Formats: sequence, C-alpha cells, structure tokens
Amino acid sequence: MLQSNLSIGPNGHLLFAGQDTVALAERYGTPLYLLDEERVRANCRLYTRPFARCFAPGSLPYYSSKALCFKALYPILLEEGMGADVVSGGELLTALAAGFPAEKLCFQGNNKTPEEIRLGVEKRVGLFTVDNLLELERLDAEAARAGIRQRVLLRLTPGIDPHTFAAVNTGRIDCQFGVPVETGQAREFILRALRMPHLEVAGYHCHIGSQIFDFQPFADAAQIVLDVAAAVRDEAGYTPSVLNLGGGFGVRYKEDDPVVDIPACIERLSGILARLCEERGLPLPAVSMEPGRSIVADAGVTLYTAGPVKVIEGYRSYVVVDGGMSDNPRYALYQAPYTVLNASRAGDPCDGEISIAGRCCETGALIQENVPMARPKTGEIVAVLVTGAYNYSMASNYNRVCRPPIVLLSGGKSRVAVRRETWADMTACDL
Amino acid sequence: MLQSNLSIGPNGHLLFAGQDTVALAERYGTPLYLLDEERVRANCRLYTRPFARCFAPGSLPYYSSKALCFKALYPILLEEGMGADVVSGGELLTALAAGFPAEKLCFQGNNKTPEEIRLGVEKRVGLFTVDNLLELERLDAEAARAGIRQRVLLRLTPGIDPHTFAAVNTGRIDCQFGVPVETGQAREFILRALRMPHLEVAGYHCHIGSQIFDFQPFADAAQIVLDVAAAVRDEAGYTPSVLNLGGGFGVRYKEDDPVVDIPACIERLSGILARLCEERGLPLPAVSMEPGRSIVADAGVTLYTAGPVKVIEGYRSYVVVDGGMSDNPRYALYQAPYTVLNASRAGDPCDGEISIAGRCCETGALIQENVPMARPKTGEIVAVLVTGAYNYSMASNYNRVCRPPIVLLSGGKSRVAVRRETWADMTACDL
Repeated sequence: MLQSNLSIGPNGHLLFAGQDTVALAERYGTPLYLLDEERVRANCRLYTRPFARCFAPGSLPYYSSKALCFKALYPILLEEGMGADVVSGGELLTALAAGFPAEKLCFQGNNKTPEEIRLGVEKRVGLFTVDNLLELERLDAEAARAGIRQRVLLRLTPGIDPHTFAAVNTGRIDCQFGVPVETGQAREFILRALRMPHLEVAGYHCHIGSQIFDFQPFADAAQIVLDVAAAVRDEAGYTPSVLNLGGGFGVRYKEDDPVVDIPACIERLSGILARLCEERGLPLPAVSMEPGRSIVADAGVTLYTAGPVKVIEGYRSYVVVDGGMSDNPRYALYQAPYTVLNASRAGDPCDGEISIAGRCCETGALIQENVPMARPKTGEIVAVLVTGAYNYSMASNYNRVCRPPIVLLSGGKSRVAVRRETWADMTACDL
Repeated sequence: MLQSNLSIGPNGHLLFAGQDTVALAERYGTPLYLLDEERVRANCRLYTRPFARCFAPGSLPYYSSKALCFKALYPILLEEGMGADVVSGGELLTALAAGFPAEKLCFQGNNKTPEEIRLGVEKRVGLFTVDNLLELERLDAEAARAGIRQRVLLRLTPGIDPHTFAAVNTGRIDCQFGVPVETGQAREFILRALRMPHLEVAGYHCHIGSQIFDFQPFADAAQIVLDVAAAVRDEAGYTPSVLNLGGGFGVRYKEDDPVVDIPACIERLSGILARLCEERGLPLPAVSMEPGRSIVADAGVTLYTAGPVKVIEGYRSYVVVDGGMSDNPRYALYQAPYTVLNASRAGDPCDGEISIAGRCCETGALIQENVPMARPKTGEIVAVLVTGAYNYSMASNYNRVCRPPIVLLSGGKSRVAVRRETWADMTACDL
C-alpha cells in the first residue's frame, strides 16, 4: 500500500484510517472526500518537532491554507502548534471563524485587494508577506489608519528553478510573485520598506515552488536571500529576525515517487542555515516554512461509485465514476499522477488496465488513464488516493454538479466537516 | 475590434453592448462577468432561422447548458425558440426553475446517476440521450415505474477526429462517451434499445467535438451515423426520426481565428444530409445540434481591475488582476487564447507586451501571456473578451475567492442576473 493509513479489511474492502471505505461510501454517499485527522496531525509534527529542535526560538511552520481550507481544520492545526498562511480574505475569515488566533496567521498573495489589506490589518493578522511595492504603500497607509505598526515579511524572488512542475514553480525570476533579487529590484524594495513608518520589517520571504523532495533547493534559496540580507545589513544596518523559506516538501502520489524524510531534511537545512549565517556574520533568524500539500495530501482519499464500464474493443476500457474534474481538476490541469484502487475488492489482483473517466461532459475530464488495477464493476467503490490537497480547494460546479462533502475520520469515528452541497446552495446567487 | 458589440467611447473607454465598461466596473465592482443579451439572442438566431428554413419539421437547436448555466438565461433561450441540453440534475433543475418547458430539454451525459435518471423521468424531460447500456436499462426501469414511454436518442461514437483540441474532442473512437460504431457495439446497442418496452427510440446522437469551423466534420459524422441507420433499417425495420449532430460551430477568440458563416454552414449541411438520406433510401430526419460556446462566448466579457504592475528588468512584465484561474481556468487548463484590452484606454496604441497574471497563488494562474496592448496601469480596467462560455460555469473558489456576478446588458440597461458570491455563501457547507 502507498501509505501506512491504508489496509485491507477481512471482507476485502479498503480500510482508510482503519475504517471501511465501502461502508463510509454507503453511509455518506459518493463522491466523498475523506480526511484522516490523525494523519494530518502526524504530518504537522513532521514539521513542528524538528522546528522546535533545530531552529531558533520563534520558528514556526505555517500551514498553507490554499491546499485545503475549511473551518474544522483550524482547531486541529492550532492544537498541533502550527501557524497558518492565508492568501485571501476568504481564507483569513475561515481561519478566524474557527477560532484560529490572528497573530499566528501570515497573509500571503501577490494581489491582496485594498479591502483585504484593510481586513487583515483590522483583524490584527500577525504577519503580512508583502509581495510588491504597491502593497507596501497600501499596507503602510492602512496601518497608519489603524494606528499600528504592522509586522511584515518581504517577498523576494531568488531566481531558482527547483525542477518541479512549471505551474507550481514560483522561485524562477520570470514570475508574477515577489521582487527579483537578480535585477537589484529586491534591494530597492527592502530599503523602501525599511523607511515605511507604519511597517516593521520582521524579515524576508521566498518561495521556490512545490513538490520539492530535497533540502538543497531550500538551502540554495536561503543562500541567495542571506546574501541580500548581508548586503542590506552592510548598507542600512538592518538584520532580519525571520526567514520564511516558503513551500514544504513533496508528496508521494505513486509508489515510485521518492520518500522524503522531512525531519532529516529540516535538520540538514538547519545546519546549512547556521553555517550560512555564520559566514555572513548574521544572527540566526527564526525560520518559517509553508507546508500545505505535505500536511493534508496523504490524509485524503476520494471515493466514487463506478457507473458504466466501457470496453472499446481493440482500444481501451473506461470506467465512468460519479465525480470528475469538478471535484478533482488536477489531471485535466497538470496530467497529475494518482494511485487508484478498487475499494470494494482491494485485495484482488490487477486484471488489466482501465482509464478512470469523470462524469463531466468533456473528453479531458479524466481522473487517471490506463491504471493497472482490479478493474471496477458498476456499483463498486473506486478510491483515488492522496487527494487531500488541491482537490476540494480547486473544486468547481462545472456541469452544475454539487461539490462533495468532507468527512473527517478520527479514532474509529467519522463526522461531516463540510456537508454535501445542495442545488439550493449552488444556485443561491442566481436571481 | 474583434466583434461588432465592442466599440470605443468618446472618453476612450471600451464600450460593450453600447455600455461603458469602466462605468460598469465602478458600479458593480470587479471581477465582473458581463453578458450581452442581444448578442445571445442574435447567436440563437444564427441557428434557429436556418434550422427552420433548411431542415425537416421538428428540427431544433438545443443550447448546451454546460457552457453557461444560470436561471435568467433560460427565458431568453425560450423566447428565441431554442431547446436546451442539460448534463446533470443541477442544470435540469436550473432550467425548470426558470420556467423552461421540460419537453424542450434533452438530458445528456455519460454517467447520469440513478437519482438523476429518476428526476429526469419524473420531470418529463422531452428526450434523454442514452450514452450506454447501463443507462438504457436503468432508464427503461425508471420509465416503467413512472408508467411512461420515454423518448430517447442513442449516442453513437462515429470515430472521427475533427482536428480540434484533444480535451474537447469527443468523436474519436477511444473516448468515454457514447457507443462506438466501428467495433459493432453501436449496432448491438441500438437493437437492444429497440427492444426496451418503456423506451421510444426517436433517433441517433453523435458529438464530434467543439470549436469546429466547418460543416464538413458534421457531414462526415452524419454519413457514418446514416450508414448505421440504413443497416439497422435493413436488419430491424427501424428508421430514425431525429438525428442530433451534437456540438456547434467554432468561436473567434482572437483576430486571426477564422470567421464561420453559421447559416451558410447549416444550409450546406442540409443539402448534404438530404443527399445522404436519399442515397440510403432513408426519410429525412429532424435535425438537432447542441451549440453552447457559439451562443454565449462572444456575448461575454470579463472585467478586472489592474493591481500591481511588475516589470522584471531584462525579462518581461506582468500586470496582476483581481481575478484569475478561479473565474477563468481556461488558460491554466488548455493555454486557451484570449484577446485582452485596456478598457480604460481602449483607443490607445499598443506600447508593448504584458502578461496578465491572476491573483491565485500558483504560477500557472495566468489569464494570458505576452499580450501586445496599451499596458494597464494600477487601477485601470482590464477586459478579457469572449469569456461568456466555460468561464462562470468552470469557476471555482480556489484560494477561497468569491465568484464574480453576472450582469446582463440589454437595451442600454444593466441588471444583475447572478449576484456576487459572499464569504457566507462560500462557507455555507462548512460545519
């Protein structure tokens, strides 16, 4: 099995977090997002524990809300000692509505609207990561209005390509995020920020991308940012107290994806950071990262019911499930790999390949192609693994299909955390 | 200008359907979907008029709801004499809630759930397009339960590649829709359907894809289906009274896209169909098509407000707008081409290239790259043209951003047809 929270029950059903997925599908209906709370907690600890052990006081991993955002997730994150990163007023309000403390939030994003900047200041968000000069000016004015000094990080673009998908590669110089180091624009941006009367520059932020399986790209980015930090220290006497390295580590979608030892990577990174700071005569900053995918992805499984099975003689076979690109657009977007299992007969041997098609009226609306598996029959439950990140958060009502619920699994029990959308919900804005 | 419903006002603002887009952005906020009602009506007539003139009685174009579905659209379609095609219970209920008559609906889709089949039968939908054997059996049972004989079309896969995007190419044999002709499976499917006691087979359906700029692919598909029809007539004595050719004609996203004369194409098609039927000794069937994109695409414009402008010296420039892949995922999905204008200075000459980035935290979240235009300054209004189809319908809450409203423009007036989503709407299912 791809991950330790999966097993096979005596009746041959797939167990997830120890619970019978076929019974869960029966109880809650399909399509259905499951989320294993214990796995979310364990994933948080892969960051919080080495952070506490290896990094300077004040270091904190911030959960990247865009991976998966719903109210009931935030009390779990809070209990696990995580901060949270939000990229919109919507994510910000969700975290606050769940009782998450504003001071543990970091407000990200390359185009926060004036209304969102005001909201963040009013709610006393702990940190803003300021992406650009326009935001710097708007935020300073808003902090002045509120009579506070807003703590900020400054987002720099180190100009690194961490060899990940182009779509989630945010560290290269030619991109819409942050201020580039290479062109000298970062230096000007920092000096400008340091002169802003209502902002307190806590430090620097960079983000080099997603799905990174090694500590080295983070170390490379840190080196570039610390070079900038040393130059600014020499020029303006400012030293950062926080260094946010963005992102998190990669996730295994398939058996042949590499396994990352996250605590070991963080430990290696801490050693490298200590050396880099020492070489530059910089005090060791508190370190932040923003893991999202690696906190929730493998805590999630999506269940579908198999509908028609189409054997196109001489070509290939399809099983059409009762969801599709409306609840998981990642294959349509990135041809993202997924592991698919027949949850009804999880112990049965593979008997061929089959493509998992969605119900949306679009040829590209596939979940995965040519999957070797015990081919599902109509009515059987199909499980798509590692769907905790960027599935619910990217879901749409394409074809006016309602979005599935999220059921949290914990300690042998299950509860609805996000209820199934209804037609009335979906059309609430139609006048 | 790309299309006749665009012009430039005396103040240099872009006018759409004769209305000042900058004033509309001010009044309704951004991001904002605009829909030109007169253009929707004119596009309907491109089909309804030649249909009435060229095809047998009972011929009808069905609007493909998946392109854009909201209640206020259906009274317009009804007045224009269109039928409507729905692919889910959600689309079906939307049309009915708007007073659209069930008998003018055709229920499509490759995996209607048992609940949706029941709903369609109970609501007395005029036609089901049956995609597969499983649905045939389920629908027959449901019709028996309701004590009716359900009229159906049978979806055949002709095995044609109309040279369009792979993602919207649904006529090739290796696909998840319909029953293939080439393998002989279509013949068996038809014979089986003809024996179903509670189904009345009205005729055949095929769908070869989207964005087709010529009548020839439709004629090719018709020939294959009529060959099947002749063979079934010879074997079982059945002749179809309806032939649904699926899809509609292509839409111009950019100046260099071809112009299609839709009425002329329909006229050519009618001549070819008459000859094909005559050659096979088949009576002329009523003809249907399912235009979606060509009804609404060029009736739509999306307005954004320009946020930060990023000039990455030595590389390229970006303007970040206040929407993105959450309201228009088509560039992320297909690298779809769009024409982008500076609505605030629509008459100004191009002064370089700029990439239009969205506010979502994802590098792939672009609207369009390297657009030659009068480069927007912060606060100016950016108009993305031809966004009426597959924008609102594919929109998500990615990054927990609320979906924009749809404002209908007609006769110099504007009205909200779909209101702006609120945080409360967006989190209504969070428990």
